[in-house]
Parts: sequence; C-alpha cells; structure tokens
Amino acid sequence: MDLCRVCFFRERVCGFREREMASERDIDDLPRNKANYTALTPLWFLERAATVFPNRKSLIHGSVEYTWHQTYRRCRQLASALTKNSVTFGSTVAVIAPNVPAMYEAHFGIPMSGAAINAVNVRLNAQTIAFLLGHGSASIVMVDQEYFPLAEEALKVWENNSKGNFKAPLLIVIADKNCDPMPVQYALEKGAIEYEKFVETGDPDYTWKAPEDEWQTIALGYTSGTTASPKGVVLHHRGAYIMAMSNAVIWSMPEGAVYLWTLPLFHCNGWCFVWTLATICGTNICLRQVTAKAVYSAIAHLGVTHFSAAPVVLNTIVNAPKEETILPLPRLVHVSTAGASPPPSVLAAMSQRGFRVLHTYGLSETYGPSTLCTWKPEWDLLPLDIQARLQARQGVRYVGLEHLDVVSTSDMKPVPADGKTIGEIVFRGNIVMKGYLKNPKANEEAFAGGWYHSGDLAVKHPDGYIEIKDRSKDIIISGGENISSVEVENILYLHPAILEVSVVARPDEQWGESPCAFVTLKPDLKDTDQRKLADDIINFSRSKMPKFWVPKSVVFGPLPKTATGKIQKHLLRAKAKEMGPMKKSRL
Amino acid sequence: MDLCRVCFFRERVCGFREREMASERDIDDLPRNKANYTALTPLWFLERAATVFPNRKSLIHGSVEYTWHQTYRRCRQLASALTKNSVTFGSTVAVIAPNVPAMYEAHFGIPMSGAAINAVNVRLNAQTIAFLLGHGSASIVMVDQEYFPLAEEALKVWENNSKGNFKAPLLIVIADKNCDPMPVQYALEKGAIEYEKFVETGDPDYTWKAPEDEWQTIALGYTSGTTASPKGVVLHHRGAYIMAMSNAVIWSMPEGAVYLWTLPLFHCNGWCFVWTLATICGTNICLRQVTAKAVYSAIAHLGVTHFSAAPVVLNTIVNAPKEETILPLPRLVHVSTAGASPPPSVLAAMSQRGFRVLHTYGLSETYGPSTLCTWKPEWDLLPLDIQARLQARQGVRYVGLEHLDVVSTSDMKPVPADGKTIGEIVFRGNIVMKGYLKNPKANEEAFAGGWYHSGDLAVKHPDGYIEIKDRSKDIIISGGENISSVEVENILYLHPAILEVSVVARPDEQWGESPCAFVTLKPDLKDTDQRKLADDIINFSRSKMPKFWVPKSVVFGPLPKTATGKIQKHLLRAKAKEMGPMKKSRL
Repeated sequence: MDLCRVCFFRERVCGFREREMASERDIDDLPRNKANYTALTPLWFLERAATVFPNRKSLIHGSVEYTWHQTYRRCRQLASALTKNSVTFGSTVAVIAPNVPAMYEAHFGIPMSGAAINAVNVRLNAQTIAFLLGHGSASIVMVDQEYFPLAEEALKVWENNSKGNFKAPLLIVIADKNCDPMPVQYALEKGAIEYEKFVETGDPDYTWKAPEDEWQTIALGYTSGTTASPKGVVLHHRGAYIMAMSNAVIWSMPEGAVYLWTLPLFHCNGWCFVWTLATICGTNICLRQVTAKAVYSAIAHLGVTHFSAAPVVLNTIVNAPKEETILPLPRLVHVSTAGASPPPSVLAAMSQRGFRVLHTYGLSETYGPSTLCTWKPEWDLLPLDIQARLQARQGVRYVGLEHLDVVSTSDMKPVPADGKTIGEIVFRGNIVMKGYLKNPKANEEAFAGGWYHSGDLAVKHPDGYIEIKDRSKDIIISGGENISSVEVENILYLHPAILEVSVVARPDEQWGESPCAFVTLKPDLKDTDQRKLADDIINFSRSKMPKFWVPKSVVFGPLPKTATGKIQKHLLRAKAKEMGPMKKSRL
Repeated sequence: MDLCRVCFFRERVCGFREREMASERDIDDLPRNKANYTALTPLWFLERAATVFPNRKSLIHGSVEYTWHQTYRRCRQLASALTKNSVTFGSTVAVIAPNVPAMYEAHFGIPMSGAAINAVNVRLNAQTIAFLLGHGSASIVMVDQEYFPLAEEALKVWENNSKGNFKAPLLIVIADKNCDPMPVQYALEKGAIEYEKFVETGDPDYTWKAPEDEWQTIALGYTSGTTASPKGVVLHHRGAYIMAMSNAVIWSMPEGAVYLWTLPLFHCNGWCFVWTLATICGTNICLRQVTAKAVYSAIAHLGVTHFSAAPVVLNTIVNAPKEETILPLPRLVHVSTAGASPPPSVLAAMSQRGFRVLHTYGLSETYGPSTLCTWKPEWDLLPLDIQARLQARQGVRYVGLEHLDVVSTSDMKPVPADGKTIGEIVFRGNIVMKGYLKNPKANEEAFAGGWYHSGDLAVKHPDGYIEIKDRSKDIIISGGENISSVEVENILYLHPAILEVSVVARPDEQWGESPCAFVTLKPDLKDTDQRKLADDIINFSRSKMPKFWVPKSVVFGPLPKTATGKIQKHLLRAKAKEMGPMKKSRL
C-alpha cells in the first residue's frame, strides 16, 4: 500500500486532502512523490557496495572471507529467513556475539526484514540480559557459540520472572570456524539452530523491506546502567543514515578503507561504523578478542587503515611488550577513540608510534560519537604534551549534529566560553535517539526543555571546543571549591608507576571532601613498597597541581568496572566513605 | 509556532491527535521532538565551519579574502538585509553573477532569509532572463557589475511583457574590486544599490531562519531549454544537505580541501559543492573567468586540490600553450567533470599531466552529479587508452541517490546488463528535484511511473556501470541500425586536427539517415585545404569504426552552442536537413 504523501504514514493519520496542499507559495507547492522521496536508511549503501565493488572483500575473519556481493546476498538471505519466522516491522531480534561476521550481517539482515536489531553486550550477566531480552520483546535470539551458556541461563531467568507469560524465542547459535566446535554441538543438543543452517532457509534474492518511514526503528541498545535498570535506547533509520555518512566525512575516510573491529559492535552498533563501511565500500576486519598482538598483526598483514577503540585499548597498544608489537607501522593508521577522555600521556605515546588519534565523544543516545576534537594545523608546532592536552578535549559538534552546547544546570542558558564555567553538555539534532523504550519518565528528563541532556559536565573554551570536567556526580567539592576528578586523574597518569587511576571524593573533617585516588600499578611494580609509592605519588602531585587538588589518600588495587569497561565510581565513592573521613592531623 | 509532529506542516494538515499515534508497536511509539528532529539543511554546515575554523580562509578572490567567521557573519547580515526588504519564506531572489564572493554568500544568505536562490546563467540573453525572472517571481535581483546592462535590458523586457502588472524588483549591483569601477557608477546612477552597502543595512548577528520543513525550497534553477521555454527546477533543503555530504564522501574530500571555482555557480548551484565546501570547512578560490593560465596559476600559488569542470574546460587545460601552464603540478589535483562525456583522448591527456579525473554525470534535476564512474584499482594495470574508455562511462549511482536504472522506453522494464541494449536512464531518490515550477505537464512526464526520466539513452554494462549512448533525439538510424553519435564523436576526437566535433543524422537516399560530422579545427589548421582534410577524416574513420558509422559528410566551422555551452544539435540537424539528402552516388 502506498504511503500518504503528507504524513508518510500508511494509515494516513493526517487525513490529507489534495486541496489542503494548495499553498499561496507556488514554489513550495510541489509534493513528494515516489521518484523524489525515499526514506533515508543506511541499508541502500549495502546494495550500492555490492553493485560497485562486488568482488572486493567486505569481511575478513581469520580463514573466513566474504565479498560485498556475497555479503549482500547473505544479508538478504538472513532477512528472508527471519521473515519466514514471523519477524516483521516492530519485531526485535537480539544478537549476543563478539565481532564475528554474523554480527556484521545481522546489522543489515535484521533491519532488512523490517525489524530492529538489539546487539547485546556480551559482558553483561544473565540477570541483566534476561531483563533486556524481556524488555525489548526479542522474538529471536542469535548467540555466538562462546556465549551460548550465558544466553541459556538468561532465558531461564527470563522464564522464571515472567510468571507463565513466557514464549521461548527461537535460539540461533553462531558457530565460529576459528574456534572449538564443541560448544556448538552442545547448543544444537539444546535445540538451537545453527546460524548457517538458518540462513540457508532464506532466499538470497529476497526483496528486502526498505523502511517506508525513516523514523522506523533500526536498532535498540541498552545503556550499561551503573545505577538503575538498563535503559533501552531506540535509534531510527534516518539517524543511522546520517551517522553513516558523518563518520566518513568527519574522518575523511577514503573509499575502500580497511577498518579493524576493535570496537565492539554491541557498543552502539559500533558507533554506526557498521553502516559507514558499506557507505565507503571498505573492508571489515573482524576480531573475536582484542589484544595488542592481534591489532599490530592486522595492521601489518591485512592493510588496516582505520580503527576505533576505547581508551583502555589505546593503553594496551602503547604498553604492549615489544615482542607483541610490529613497529614501525607500515602506514599511517587512523584511530578514533571515545568514552572517557584518554590521558594526555597515552595520546602522546600513540602519536609517537605513528597512530593518528581522533578524539571523539558521544553516547548511545547520540548514535555514538557526536563531537570530535578537530585537529588544527597550527597545533602541529606545539610541544607534544600540549598537543595531547588540546587533543584530549571533546571538541566541536559532529557534522551530522545540528546543535551542541554547554548550559547552566540551573537555568539552561549557555555558559560563557571562558574555559572555566561548568555546565551540562546538551545535544539537539538528527543524531539524537528517538527515546528510551517504554520509559516515559526517563524520556521526559532526557528531553527536558527541547535538548537531550547528557549528564556530563563540561566547560566551553574560548575557541568553542568543549571539555568534559566530570560527570555531575564526579565533581569533588573541597572547601567550597570544585575539583574536577578527571583533571586530577590526567595529571596522575603522568606518574610512571600508574597504569589506571580513578579519583573520587572522600569525606574530609576539615574541607568537607578531599580527593582520594584509587590506583592500579603497572604489572612489574606490584611488589614495590606501597607506603613509599603513595608518598611519592602525593609528592609528585604537589609539584604538578594546585594544593587543594592533591589526593590526600591513595589506595592500591584493581578498579571495579561495568561490563562496558567504565570505572564504577559510585562503588569507589562508597569505599571512600567506608574508609571514614580524612582526619585533620594527616594534612 | 511549533510544527505538527506528524506531518511537520505548521498548519497541522494532518489533524493529528495524540491517541492516533498509539501503536501496538511499542518500539516505534516514540514521536519526534525538538531535541531529536531538525529539518535537514546545508545551512548548519556554515555555522559549524565558522565555529571550528573561524580563522581559516573561506574565500579568496584576487585581493579579496574572507575567513569562515567573516563569511558566516556576512551571510547572516545579507539574510537580515533581505528580510528588511520583505524577503521571506516563499520569496525568490535572483543572482546574475560569475563566481565572485557575493555569489557564494548568496547561496547561504538568501536561504537563511527563508527564500530560494535563483542563480541565473550569465550567458543567457535578455529575453530569456526576462522570462525566468518573471516566471520565478524574483522580488530582488542581485547582479554583478559586468552584467548590469544585461539585467537592465531584461527588466525592460519583463516590464514590457507584463502589461502593467510589473512591480520592479530591487536591484543590487555587485562591485568587483578587481575590476574597473565605471560600470558600478553607471548602475548606481540607474538606481541600483551597491551590494556592500546593502549588506551593511543588515545585522551580522541576525538569528537566521532555519527551515522548519526540510522539503522547503532552497534553490530554483532553469534548464537551458534547447527546444522549449526554460523549465524551473525546484530543489529543497533536504536534497541539498544530502548532496553536500555525498560530494564529500564520493570524492573522499579531506577536511580543509582547497576548491577552485572553474564550474559556474549558476550551474545547478555549482553541483551543490557550494554547500560541500562548508561541510568540509574547505577554502573556495573564486574565478571570474576560466582560462588555462588562471587554473594553472591557482594550482601553483593557492594550493588548489580539487576543481570541477565541464569537458570543454579540460580541453582548454590540456591544449593550453606551454607558456600558460605550470607543470609538473605541485600535487595531485582532483578534477570532477560532467556534462557530455569527455572524449577518451582528453581524459588520457589529463591523466598524463597529473590530474586525477573523476567522471560524473547528472542533471539540474538531480542536484548536479548523481552517478560517477568509480575507479577500480585493477584498472591501473590497463593501457591508458582503455583506462580512458572505461573512465568515460557514466558509471554507478551516487552515494546519496537510492535508485538508478536503465529502462526500456517501451515498457519501463530494466534493460539487460549486456552493454548493448539501449534504454533510458531513470532516477529515484532523495536527490531528485521537487519538480518543475508551475509546469504540471512537464512534471507528469518527468515523473511518469514513479521514476525521474532523464531523456538520456544508455546501456548497462555487465559490471553494472552505465554508459550514455545518446540523447534520444541524437540517435542516428542508418539502414535500420542505431548509431550513437557520441561514439562516433569520441573516435573523431582522436584525429589530430579536430578541436570539437558534433555528429548528427543527415537524410540519406540509400540508408534513410547517415552520420554528418560538424567540425571545428584546431587554431593553427584553419588554412589547410578543407577538401583534403575532409577526405583524411573520412579515411581515418574507416580505419577506426564500423563502416556504417563513418560520417558520409564533413562540414567545417564553429559549432552553435547554448548559453551553458551545450552544442545545439537541433540546429545542426536542421542544417544537415537543409543540405539535402546524401546521394547514392557519393557512397
């Protein structure tokens, strides 16, 4: 059935009548028609890649390789197979998998059936996965062989929690030729169908379902939920299209770029690079597990030109033992990073090794990166440490984002661009999510005042670049002065013994709160005298930062993290509280 | 007033009610709001360029230079000044100018006032300009000092034709500091206001009018109209946005690219590169007149990395006398070309000089280029002449175009990809125009069957690339066999004496029609014995093409052209008809 040409709903909710279109403005009196309007979706990019470069490698995963011609056929085949299992517009198909070919195919095949893909973080526990499969109403669950037991357990929890309302989803197990086949055998015995077998039930020439409304949901992803239940972030085809293009433009990615999947595809659909690779007809290099060795090897042997990674991966790359690296790099390698700002020392070390790092920032709610720290040619002349400091800023808006600002948390007015006044980062534009699934209260808060509220606190510098100072809860208020824990951490990272550090507020008898540093040492330093090292770190800090910033306590040990690798500051804050208030005498 | 969130019309034509949105599909039940929906427009790219690179050169025109900060302020100021003169949504402002800074600014400033820009081809005559100013209801006319007398004459014609209904538009004369000031003086005496003076009446901090509906018109452009009255092609903000991004992606244009304006901005808004330059924060190099010397000089002295040009300009560049060139080029220079397919010999010569040519194809109706001949790495190994032949094809769809096909003119079914079967090139997608202004009949024809019909005839090769064989009227049918005049021309271009050639059908006693070649000779050959040369060309053809393709008559002289530089084949056809049918005896 044709769409209404005014409201573009199939049901013609608008009650459109020809005569109502008549406008005194002749020049705008040319309605949409089938020839000049197509709902925006990144799915057409796949068809294009298959037409233009049918024989180019689309995907390489160990011994498994596909061309764009094959990938397009396989995705259509998957879509067709899903359709035969009642998947259609409004359905959700969940995928629990690392960066394997099926995960890539799912990002096209599932939307091609009209459904939304819910890419599940494999690091979550069964209880959380049970919650989100139920919350997202997954009718089919695709799971990588390694995570089958996890999925099995999650389904049990889901069934137990659903009080008789449970309808078991179809279970598809993804076998990996590069791995031990035993877990697949186990899954088949438990009634799962093997992914390749499932795909074979579909038609590779299937006429896939392009969205009729570009507002249609393409993906559902859950935030890690450090405090409350995970929230389901709903993304649409329009935003995914704009983001696919924006990634290419922002990074000047050439046609045919070779992209290494260090970034998990379940992190906000690989920041939409999953669709960008089809846009630029590039090649995807899959990775089940990210190690320094695997990254250097892919660069040396598979022609990798670009990859994206959380700061912790950059850390791994620069701190890798010599025998795991292949240096010098055979070519300039572009790396985009996001999440927490990488410490300037890590950025400098990456640059020295020949990586060109692009620092970006964003959230699941903004389709991945939505700001970037655009490099200025004049910065080339600055000392490396200042370069790294400039580069650590979150920067300016992405090309696909229309509005970015830092606003006062009290009256929502923009803060002055003075590099000092702290406000909340807010977004407005086409790469802001549709909203949270079934969560009107969260939506109301998130979209208050016509902006999407990130919850991140930042300043705006005189050059217009923004810089995150803290999550609202991570500000330390000492003697009435705000201390940014991030800034303290950045300086502590310069200390040679520190691998990871997180600074939180500890109650303080004199100052109300004072900084407390939780530190993980570099591997070879674990046996050092910790008392002496703590003093050394405090002395180091005194020489580098304002007195009131200096951590008054240093605690050694591993840092608690969420499944997505974020340090759980609230646990550290609780720990610091347990330690009791800092005494006056220690000052 | 807020827009309806269903139909996005201010008047709520849809009669939207909250309850009607309730859908059984939870996942799609998240309506648009102010934070997550912004009408697509390329205008935000200018604001972004000014924020990210305020001090980078936006425009260089001889001694006149602006930064992005200045350009953004000047465009807002222009928009504000226009607004004070009753320009608003639905208005049209015409600009008659070559590639000068004001022309660039007009492409932002006019839409920022809510109006549409009508960039007028300066090569048109007063009668035609009068027609299109009236047809487009221009309320303000901006005109470059050189073309003021032309505009003056056009207004007189318009007034005479309008039988008392004429309301004189405000006339703004654009002075060029690089030129003689006398014509400006003349214009001021005639009551025009000088552009800089006009801009000064506006507010540089003006809050410009972003479109509320992305379907709003951004530009109106007239086709050259070789046969009938010019048709007004109406383009919207949505398409201009997609095209701005597509140009950058297709060409992998790096951030900060330096673009030389050899392509007239009045040719389909410079194929939307006018907006792409803001997208990538690049630098525009203006050019009042395109000469080989100016092009080589800008490459050598102003850092030009990219330019676009019609084939005739490529011709000029490769045939320039040595003293006008600066070779070797200081860097690889990317050139995109479109219009008629450049002869393979020209493409090969460009490549030899160090230009990388991207061959594209499109129409005003598709926002400029909408297909491109994507280069395949494996072609690098082929001989230069075969490379040029492959590159001369129109290729595959642009990244922002959703559907491209070649269909049978009888039943509109796709032709087989055999490189032989001729059909019509048709388009469908977001970079197809809104339609022709006030021309329902032309719209009906253009959009018949849910496709935009280009009127160009092509084949589809087995690799999916399309290749134009002819405009429907340019096919020569000889003895029942179709002859593509373009193919004959391509071969004739290999003849050392030929500068330009156009082949049309001449009535033929024996074969119905036979090819007749109209030839312009290279400058130093004008005095050669034409009889001998004609024989030589015919003999040359016999050795290179099928017998029935060989021109049976050769005519020397200048070729008639439209204002946009297209050879007027219909005039040549008329001339060939006048010459009378080819006699049997001459064979």
